[in-house]
Amino acid sequence: MPELRKDPVIGRWVIIATERARRPGNFVDPQKNYFVDEEPCPFCHNADQEIYSIKGDDGQWKVKVVASAQPLVKKEVQFNRHGHGLYDVVNSYGVNEIVIETPEHITNMADLDIHQIQHVIEAYKIRFKDIAKEPDLQYALAFKNYGWAAGGRRIGHSRSQIIATSINPLRVKEKLKGAKRHFDYHDRCLYCDLIRQEMSSGKRVVAETEHFIAITPFAPRFPFELTILPKEHHCDFSQGIVGHEEDLAKILKDILSRIKVGLEDPAYNYIIQTAPFNRLKRGDRWQTIKQDYHWHIEVLPRLSLAAGFEKGTGFYICPIPPEDTAEFLREVEV
Amino acid sequence: MPELRKDPVIGRWVIIATERARRPGNFVDPQKNYFVDEEPCPFCHNADQEIYSIKGDDGQWKVKVVASAQPLVKKEVQFNRHGHGLYDVVNSYGVNEIVIETPEHITNMADLDIHQIQHVIEAYKIRFKDIAKEPDLQYALAFKNYGWAAGGRRIGHSRSQIIATSINPLRVKEKLKGAKRHFDYHDRCLYCDLIRQEMSSGKRVVAETEHFIAITPFAPRFPFELTILPKEHHCDFSQGIVGHEEDLAKILKDILSRIKVGLEDPAYNYIIQTAPFNRLKRGDRWQTIKQDYHWHIEVLPRLSLAAGFEKGTGFYICPIPPEDTAEFLREVEV
Repeated sequence: MPELRKDPVIGRWVIIATERARRPGNFVDPQKNYFVDEEPCPFCHNADQEIYSIKGDDGQWKVKVVASAQPLVKKEVQFNRHGHGLYDVVNSYGVNEIVIETPEHITNMADLDIHQIQHVIEAYKIRFKDIAKEPDLQYALAFKNYGWAAGGRRIGHSRSQIIATSINPLRVKEKLKGAKRHFDYHDRCLYCDLIRQEMSSGKRVVAETEHFIAITPFAPRFPFELTILPKEHHCDFSQGIVGHEEDLAKILKDILSRIKVGLEDPAYNYIIQTAPFNRLKRGDRWQTIKQDYHWHIEVLPRLSLAAGFEKGTGFYICPIPPEDTAEFLREVEV
Repeated sequence: MPELRKDPVIGRWVIIATERARRPGNFVDPQKNYFVDEEPCPFCHNADQEIYSIKGDDGQWKVKVVASAQPLVKKEVQFNRHGHGLYDVVNSYGVNEIVIETPEHITNMADLDIHQIQHVIEAYKIRFKDIAKEPDLQYALAFKNYGWAAGGRRIGHSRSQIIATSINPLRVKEKLKGAKRHFDYHDRCLYCDLIRQEMSSGKRVVAETEHFIAITPFAPRFPFELTILPKEHHCDFSQGIVGHEEDLAKILKDILSRIKVGLEDPAYNYIIQTAPFNRLKRGDRWQTIKQDYHWHIEVLPRLSLAAGFEKGTGFYICPIPPEDTAEFLREVEV
């Protein structure tokens, strides 16, 4: 029987099509992730654009952050709003950086060693703290596009992006609103409640470390979608991660390896969903965000495509229950 | 300069990445639409499931509506809600039908003749009116998935789907809300205002017939996205279309042919966005929907893929301005 499940945070319904369930092994990325190295590689040779780097004992960079060559948002523009009749336009003020995660031509983060992934996490932390000092920016997002179906370009270095914007994105607003509604009524963090319920049932848990848990969400948007949550409550990634960088690297490598091995190296995205920057003008509201929001990472293998029904309704259709995908990923040998 | 544009109906921001603009000719579906005919073809041989058909003088069907063999929603279930701790579930009550648009193995609707497309539109109209009699259903959606990247399965007959659900989809609610806000303030239909503004500027108009206009929206979600709007105000497709079926077939064939020829036969979706069913319990609200909502069709070529930034923020990124895509499509020879 297909069923509709409600996302407990933002209230969006997802159709879990249990009867047309394809078996987990049937999901293989129909568009293979082909990567073509450009010559000369633009990520091996762009030291002049360096914003930040972590260096080894030999003085060579291990992780390097550079400005995007094709930024979606820019710092060099004056923030400006205007209209055309019924229509509204603002220019796209913000920051767009590329995190080059390895000096070698390794394409999938799953193949980096834990210490290298830990350096990437440290780079996010440092850049988030630095970007937060810009008074006109409200939000910073770190995310990865791996493979064609995830929007990734085909170049040899594993890498991710940081984008900071002058407005809070809609999806972040929805999550903050859902978390606040729960806290206002229960006086408890919604995500802390979810972690307790998931750990006690166990059926959607894929992996666990000392400080983190990885689950398949109850109402996923995509087959094999995962959420990595810190067990300890913190709204902000760059503050909450301090001291736990290596442990996050451990669970991230574990999850990405299970996806790579079990699903035959599919395209995927991951997205760090942290709280908006603490701005004085929002004062008291940030006090409530501190207690009711809980940072986390969404990991989205890209094995299915939204069709007309999903575009027309806003429903998502997930062709396999998350309990089955969790079981499948738990049993992958990595 | 990239700019952020606000959708005037639902208020969602779209980044128009003008500086990284790819030329219209550069958009070619990277995943070719390969169609494999199943043997024996399930759509040539399933008369027993027929719900409705339009027949020619020879008694043979021209357009046939059948029940979906793998329905997402079903009428044979009792509407039911339950919870698991923090989580909410309902079963998926509704109707899921397939419209087989031709008895021949023609895959792209663009290749059907105008009278055949007119029959498809008539079939939608008849089925919508019939489905509206079901007291527990709130909304019916007609849509097409053509090609792999649009979620289409690979079978030889051009076809589309009708899905009716017991709840109003989120995206429909958002459009109704935006249209009502505009009417409440201006005492005019937002869509009628948009049509006037677009016809007077002309730069986003792709095609026009006696009763319809096809434009690229000011803040599109996808490159080459189009909207077909009836010039005459009506909230409901099945009532508003009466007498204009052939004219809609004309503009639909024109638009789909421009997409096929100009963009090298890409995958696409189209979605008819009509008003919810008129239910007595909503009484007065439907009186306002009648005056402030305006049915239309979204046509979405699927040439780009949402990446991590879009999934994480709810922003869409459109890599080419709609003024350029309108100009390109206007100049395609069909």
